[in-house]
Amino acid sequence: MVPHLITALTGPINELEQRVLESMPAIERWFRLEWMEHTPPFYSSVDLRNAGFKLAPVDTNLFPGGFNNLTPEMLPLAVQAAMAAIEKICPEAKNLLLVPEAKNRGSFYLSNLATLVRIFSMAGLNVRLGSLDESIKEPTTVALPDGSALTLEPLVRQRSRLMLKDFDPCTILLNDDLSSGIPDLLTHLHEQYLLPPLHAGWAQRRKSQHFRAYEEVSKKFAKLLGMDPWLIYPHSVAVDGLDFNTGAGLDALQAQVDATLTRTRRKYKEYGINEKPFVVVKPDAGTHGLGVMTIRDAKDLEALAIKAREKLAKLQGVPALSQVLVQEGVATHERIHEAVAEPVVYMMDRYVVGGFYRVHADRAEDENLNAPGSSFVPLAFAHSSHLPAPGEKPGASAPNRFYMYGVIGRLAMLAASYELETTDPDAEDYA
Amino acid sequence: MVPHLITALTGPINELEQRVLESMPAIERWFRLEWMEHTPPFYSSVDLRNAGFKLAPVDTNLFPGGFNNLTPEMLPLAVQAAMAAIEKICPEAKNLLLVPEAKNRGSFYLSNLATLVRIFSMAGLNVRLGSLDESIKEPTTVALPDGSALTLEPLVRQRSRLMLKDFDPCTILLNDDLSSGIPDLLTHLHEQYLLPPLHAGWAQRRKSQHFRAYEEVSKKFAKLLGMDPWLIYPHSVAVDGLDFNTGAGLDALQAQVDATLTRTRRKYKEYGINEKPFVVVKPDAGTHGLGVMTIRDAKDLEALAIKAREKLAKLQGVPALSQVLVQEGVATHERIHEAVAEPVVYMMDRYVVGGFYRVHADRAEDENLNAPGSSFVPLAFAHSSHLPAPGEKPGASAPNRFYMYGVIGRLAMLAASYELETTDPDAEDYA
Repeated sequence: MVPHLITALTGPINELEQRVLESMPAIERWFRLEWMEHTPPFYSSVDLRNAGFKLAPVDTNLFPGGFNNLTPEMLPLAVQAAMAAIEKICPEAKNLLLVPEAKNRGSFYLSNLATLVRIFSMAGLNVRLGSLDESIKEPTTVALPDGSALTLEPLVRQRSRLMLKDFDPCTILLNDDLSSGIPDLLTHLHEQYLLPPLHAGWAQRRKSQHFRAYEEVSKKFAKLLGMDPWLIYPHSVAVDGLDFNTGAGLDALQAQVDATLTRTRRKYKEYGINEKPFVVVKPDAGTHGLGVMTIRDAKDLEALAIKAREKLAKLQGVPALSQVLVQEGVATHERIHEAVAEPVVYMMDRYVVGGFYRVHADRAEDENLNAPGSSFVPLAFAHSSHLPAPGEKPGASAPNRFYMYGVIGRLAMLAASYELETTDPDAEDYA
Repeated sequence: MVPHLITALTGPINELEQRVLESMPAIERWFRLEWMEHTPPFYSSVDLRNAGFKLAPVDTNLFPGGFNNLTPEMLPLAVQAAMAAIEKICPEAKNLLLVPEAKNRGSFYLSNLATLVRIFSMAGLNVRLGSLDESIKEPTTVALPDGSALTLEPLVRQRSRLMLKDFDPCTILLNDDLSSGIPDLLTHLHEQYLLPPLHAGWAQRRKSQHFRAYEEVSKKFAKLLGMDPWLIYPHSVAVDGLDFNTGAGLDALQAQVDATLTRTRRKYKEYGINEKPFVVVKPDAGTHGLGVMTIRDAKDLEALAIKAREKLAKLQGVPALSQVLVQEGVATHERIHEAVAEPVVYMMDRYVVGGFYRVHADRAEDENLNAPGSSFVPLAFAHSSHLPAPGEKPGASAPNRFYMYGVIGRLAMLAASYELETTDPDAEDYA
C-alpha cells in the first residue's frame, strides 16, 4: 500500500494499471516475501516515466534529497517508516549523525536536511549534522528561508568511530552520494552503522548494475502478473572503453544505440504504438557533470560526442568518462499546467512515504527533467469525495493512480537491494 | 511520532504538554525499548479525557470499532502499520478471516468493517468476513450506506481450524469484544493466529487489571519525564462482592468512593485546582448494560444503587454484576461547537494511526460520552501554514497538541500489553 495521492494522469485506465490495481493483495504479499529475503535500502527515491503504454523507473537515488517537497500529511508516514527501520537496525539507538552533501548550501537542500532532522527526531533520535566540508572547523549556524536554522558541526574521527564533539552516535546517515569519491573519514567504521553502505555511493555504484538487477526484478514481477516485463523495464546496456577525446569506443556506442532503437521499434510495432523511439545515453556512475543526453536518431550521436567533448574539457578533477549506459527512452506523458512532469516516489525502509512531480517548463517529454529550472509540485492526498465507493467493488471506485507508481518505485528499490547484495565488498563474509 | 492532527484544545500549552513535547526523542526511544520487551496489542483504541491540568485514558478498547471515522489521509498510516504487524506475526500470510460482532448490523459498524477490509486488503491480504451469527447459513450480502456491500459468510469449524467454505486463513482477526462469552467456535484454535487472543475479550478481561498495569506504566513514564504520575493516571480501584439487589457490598463501595474523593480533593489542593472532584463507577468487565455512572457526592451513591437495580432488573441473560471499578473522574475540557468532546486515539501494532473526537451535545464534561446520541468529528492533519517554523527551535513553532494524545494513548496500549501478559492463560508455557 502507498499513500492515496492524486496524480496528473487523467486519461482512461490502461491495461497495465488495471492489472496492478486488481492484483493489489497478491502484489503486497509478493513484496512481503521478497523483503523476507532481501534488505531494503534505508531510504530511496525513484524517478518514473509514464508513457501511457509503459511505466518505468529511470533513476534510483540511494541518497535522496528533496524530502522538503513532501507534504506535511506525508511526514507521519515517513516517521512511522523511520521508526520501523530503526527498530530493525538498532533499536537501542539514541543518537543519529546526519552527514549532508559537503558543499551544498542551497536553500532547497537545507530544507531537505531540516525535514530529515525533523523525521528522525520524531522517530526518537537525537539528530545532529556533521559536515564533510573541511572549512567547517566549529559549529556553524546556517539560516533557512523559513527563519529557522541548522547547525553544521565538524566531524571528529576517533580511532574507528566517527563523531562530533560530545556526540557519539551509533548510527550515521549519509546524504552525500559520494560522486567525488569516498572521504577517508568514512572508511573503516566497523563499530557504527553507516547507512547507506559506502558501496551504495557513486564512487562504486553503476547504473548498468542497477538496471541488470531491475531487469531480474521486473521479470519476476511480470511473471506474477502474467504480463510482458517490457511494459515496466527500459532496455539498458552498458558501453565501456569510451574515450570521447580520441573517439575510441564510439563505434560500439553507435552499435548499441542502433540495436536499442531497433529493439524498441519492434516492440512499438508489436503493441501498435505510433511513436518515434529514442534512447538516452548517460554516464554509468553519477552524473559526471554530463547529465543525460537524448538521441532520437543515430546521427544525433555525432553531435553528442562533440557536446560531451566540450563539456568534459570544461570540467576539472572529474575522472575521464569511459563507461556510459545506453537506455531505451521512456517519454513522460504527464503534464502539469502544460509543463512536462515526471513523478518521483519516496521510500523509507520498505514503505512508500510520499511523492511529488518534477516539472520542467522548458523541456520536452523525451528529455531529462532533473536539470536546472525544474520545480516541484507536491502530490495531494486523494479525498474520499473522489472515491464514490472506496475499494469494495472492483471498478466501482475511482482508481488510486498513485498506487501503481508506488509499486514500480518499490520494484526499483527492490532492484537496488539486489544490486547492493551483489556489489557488497563484504558479501563473502556472510556466504 | 503520531500523525500531526489539529485538536480542539486552544488554551495555552501547559506544563505537562510542554514537557512531553520537549522530551519527544527520549519518549520515542523509551517506547522503542519497551516494545523490545513487550508485544503491542494487534489493534486498539483509547478514550482520553483532557482536564487541562490532567490527561488520562479512561477506556482501552482491544476490539476497536469506528475505523470508519478516520479520515482518508490516515488510512495509509493504518495500512503501513498493518503491514508491519503482519510482517512480524505471519509474513507468509495470504488470507485473513475477519470475525465481526455477531449481531451488529448498524450502518456505522458495517462501515467500520468495510474500512478494516480495505486496510488489510491494501496491506496484502485476501480478506473475508466470517459471522458468529448463527442465522447466517449461507453467504449474505449486506448493503452499506455508500452503495457498496459486504458479504457475511458462515464460519466453518474443521477440527482445529476455523475457516469459510473454500477459504483457509492463517490469521483470524476478531472484532467482537466477547462481552457475551467465548463461542465454542473460537476455542482451541492452535494452528491459526487468533488476534487479539481470547483473554483480551470481556469474558475474561477486567478494567481493574488494566488500570493496575497502567499505573505501573504511568509511574515508569513519569520517572522518565521527572513528573508526578497522577498527571496522567486516574486513581482506580476494584470493589468486589457487590449485589445491588441485596445491598451487599454497598458499604465497601461507599468507602472506596469516599476514599477516592478525599484523595482527589487532596491532589486538587496540592495543585491549586479549583474544581469539584467526582468519581465514576463502572462494571469491571465490559459495559454490563449499565455503562458508566458519575458520582459527584457521596449521597449520589444511593441513587446509583437504585438506578443500577432498575437497569439490571430489565436485562435478560446478563450475569449478576458483582465487581465494579471505582475511578477518579477526569473531566474533559475540550469542546467542539460548544458540545463536550473527548479525543479517541487509534493504534495498530505500536503505531498511532489516527484519531477523532467523540462529541455529545447532551452530556456534561464529567459524564461518559460513549452513549447513544454521540457523534464523531474526524481530526484533520495540521498544515505547515499553521507551523511557522517546523520543529527546529523549541518554542519557535506551534506545538502538535495531538502528539501528547498519541503518547498517552500509547501508554494505555503498553499497559494493555502488560495486562495481557499477566492474564495470559498460556503464560507458564513460556516461563
